[in-house]
Amino acid sequence: MTLTEVARAIAMKQVSSHEVTRALLHRIAQWQPHLNGFMAIEAEAALKAAEQADAALAAGEVRGPLHGVPLAHKDMYYDAGKVVTCGSLIRRDYVATTTSTALQRLKDAGQVRLGALHMAEFAYGPTGHNSHYGPVRNPWNVAHITGGSSSGSGSAVAARLTFAALGSDTGGSIRMPANFCGVTGLKVTWGRISRAGAMPLSQSLDTVGPLAQTAEDCALLLALMAGPDPEDPTASAEPVADYVAATKGSLKGLKIGVPATFYVDDLDSEVARVLDETIAVLKREGADIVKVELPDQRQLQAASQLVLAVEAAAFHKRWLIERPQDYGAQVLMRLQNGLAVPAITYLEAMRWRGPALAAHHAATAGVDAVIAPVSPVPPPTIAESDVGGNANAPAVLQRLTLFTRPVNYLGLPSLVVPSGFTGSGLPVGMQLIGRAFDEATLLTIGAAFQRATDYHAKVPKLPS
Amino acid sequence: MTLTEVARAIAMKQVSSHEVTRALLHRIAQWQPHLNGFMAIEAEAALKAAEQADAALAAGEVRGPLHGVPLAHKDMYYDAGKVVTCGSLIRRDYVATTTSTALQRLKDAGQVRLGALHMAEFAYGPTGHNSHYGPVRNPWNVAHITGGSSSGSGSAVAARLTFAALGSDTGGSIRMPANFCGVTGLKVTWGRISRAGAMPLSQSLDTVGPLAQTAEDCALLLALMAGPDPEDPTASAEPVADYVAATKGSLKGLKIGVPATFYVDDLDSEVARVLDETIAVLKREGADIVKVELPDQRQLQAASQLVLAVEAAAFHKRWLIERPQDYGAQVLMRLQNGLAVPAITYLEAMRWRGPALAAHHAATAGVDAVIAPVSPVPPPTIAESDVGGNANAPAVLQRLTLFTRPVNYLGLPSLVVPSGFTGSGLPVGMQLIGRAFDEATLLTIGAAFQRATDYHAKVPKLPS
Repeated sequence: MTLTEVARAIAMKQVSSHEVTRALLHRIAQWQPHLNGFMAIEAEAALKAAEQADAALAAGEVRGPLHGVPLAHKDMYYDAGKVVTCGSLIRRDYVATTTSTALQRLKDAGQVRLGALHMAEFAYGPTGHNSHYGPVRNPWNVAHITGGSSSGSGSAVAARLTFAALGSDTGGSIRMPANFCGVTGLKVTWGRISRAGAMPLSQSLDTVGPLAQTAEDCALLLALMAGPDPEDPTASAEPVADYVAATKGSLKGLKIGVPATFYVDDLDSEVARVLDETIAVLKREGADIVKVELPDQRQLQAASQLVLAVEAAAFHKRWLIERPQDYGAQVLMRLQNGLAVPAITYLEAMRWRGPALAAHHAATAGVDAVIAPVSPVPPPTIAESDVGGNANAPAVLQRLTLFTRPVNYLGLPSLVVPSGFTGSGLPVGMQLIGRAFDEATLLTIGAAFQRATDYHAKVPKLPS
Repeated sequence: MTLTEVARAIAMKQVSSHEVTRALLHRIAQWQPHLNGFMAIEAEAALKAAEQADAALAAGEVRGPLHGVPLAHKDMYYDAGKVVTCGSLIRRDYVATTTSTALQRLKDAGQVRLGALHMAEFAYGPTGHNSHYGPVRNPWNVAHITGGSSSGSGSAVAARLTFAALGSDTGGSIRMPANFCGVTGLKVTWGRISRAGAMPLSQSLDTVGPLAQTAEDCALLLALMAGPDPEDPTASAEPVADYVAATKGSLKGLKIGVPATFYVDDLDSEVARVLDETIAVLKREGADIVKVELPDQRQLQAASQLVLAVEAAAFHKRWLIERPQDYGAQVLMRLQNGLAVPAITYLEAMRWRGPALAAHHAATAGVDAVIAPVSPVPPPTIAESDVGGNANAPAVLQRLTLFTRPVNYLGLPSLVVPSGFTGSGLPVGMQLIGRAFDEATLLTIGAAFQRATDYHAKVPKLPS
């Protein structure tokens, strides 16, 4: 069942929250040794909360659209009174004193907490490795990475251990695991969802958002979380669309741009094939496919890495001085790199943003979305991408995230949809890059694609 | 006549724009050798424009509330086709290709261009010295400084060579010359007036605004310029008040805070006397005077200087590399200091802003405005403050601007009103620091004070 389906089934008392939660906990117990996707499994508390949800429902009290739905999220959403590790040793025992706005809105809608999902240390890593808690594994082949930093979110949604999960995306951290694990992931427009109470990495690039089975499920979660927040002045007051209604729309009349360069250069042959097949499906379903000549994306990638390095180093400064030994080697190296950047260089990198966005607008005028691969390659193995703090680490990571970082720099929304599989059965996704604050059109395209395909409905098999 | 009065007199044809312009040009010719307040005097063009304004008026065509009013502004407002020096050698011959939004709105209202006013090099200096074009002189005593960086604006308005003038305020650059020259100056809330087409110095601190004879005149100009602007995304859409109507209000029921520390510490005895006298007038006119304990203002001053140094260095980077010899020694030294700051230090200085503003709000809850001196001392002489690029320059400048920089850091509005004179006849002003986007209350207080006093109406005598 999808999130949308299970929420309806619980609300209509076709199934109880307790039954659903118990079934999930059973699956989690089976998969956890293989995947390492959960940081904490709170079985007892979850079952108790599910019982309370069932009792409330029996008494006619419906909390909201997620009443009694068990969910787990990336372990960086503060939940007052609960430990929130942020995937780190430094915060291993940190008990949150506030609750993040995004999470609070899901709690207000009735979700039941299952536990917390694994993640890259401080969300600073695109592969899913974690030198403190071990790598998260890809449910389609546990020798392969999940992508990061929302590694547990991608892994757990793919293995159907949670109906959806919050992730966060600063340079691709929702899109990479959605891509590599074969689930749907939405990176929203910068400012679309409040970041209050979510662990910060880079204030100019951070976004929070959902991973789920379908575009429809992402729409449901976005609708619950979008909008302004007194706790976060960067949460935008731009009008919120009817995202769920948008998923019913057709592709007819929509124009989808295919980049002529960069996003189609040096692609792995299987990624290239999936891109072609995806475009063919979109065309068959009525979309108008056009070529677009985007401005230099490498410059945007470089600028976004610089901004990220500086802002992350600023957030971590105190710990970099006091507890450098408590970071993993790769995260430490990357954070330290950020300490050395002069302020004028940072400001220069920030100042490209306006002109770069204007150039992007000009290049995509009249286009409803741009389609592009999420990564030029399918998921590598955990072993081959375990570069730690080696000198070649930045280059390896940069290649993986080449296609995701420019979108963060521009602040645009991007929806990843499962779009095919490699010959060896590993998922490949595609991203639809949209206009600022127009998540609705991306969800229309994603849902229409998912009505025409079933990649999103495939489920990995439990390793024997 | 004030700006308000002359605008009305021209509109009612009691006096022609040509007569007014000719009279001003006569005064300018008399004063310019003593003050050096004008960078360019465009007598012929001004008289021609005045004639056209008169002809239009005769034909029943009224351009706007400033129809035919001759004005000159700080030479950093781009006016397409006109040279805009920014007080620098580097831009000595630069012809603007666009017109700044603030200036365009005054042109749309009907102003006639008289020329351009002198300023500190690139608006980076609080005294009124300029190593390329000589210092601007204080009309009350030409041995004394005007304050900067809007040195020409303060000097020219005080000597009645223009009815008002745009200045800009990044660390006190409107308030210092208003204070030292005995005119009214309004530093608006950050974002209240578009900065498009005005020379940038520090994007986080820059504000543009008017110097004029009265609070009423400042209100008239603010009303014309305030509001959003597609050319400047930082120009706020916060509602615009009826600023002119606000100047008719009474002090009764308004609560004015007097800082218990910092702004009252180590004051020159004459500044302290004027502060006491001003408070007494405000009290007599019905204001409720209360003590306020503001948070540490030195920290704000330090943070604002760091932000300014970095942002200015970033704007000037190319010239600092290619043309260092074309800067004055002091400006060069200060800009170069900004090159060396690490990005994380800059971000830290920026991050104090939210907590600092929250602390300010808490300390001033229920208070309509805070009254404070603009500078702890009356205007020093040009000779004694001519520190150039000497090692003690930063300390000297810092003492002068101690009371203005915190306001820029917090982004709050501040109105300077002429409040008295020293024994030797030099003006002393006071600043009223307000709530964000509540310029109206400051204008109410300033206008009420000016109905009760005549410091703003005093005119300096032409030196023999």
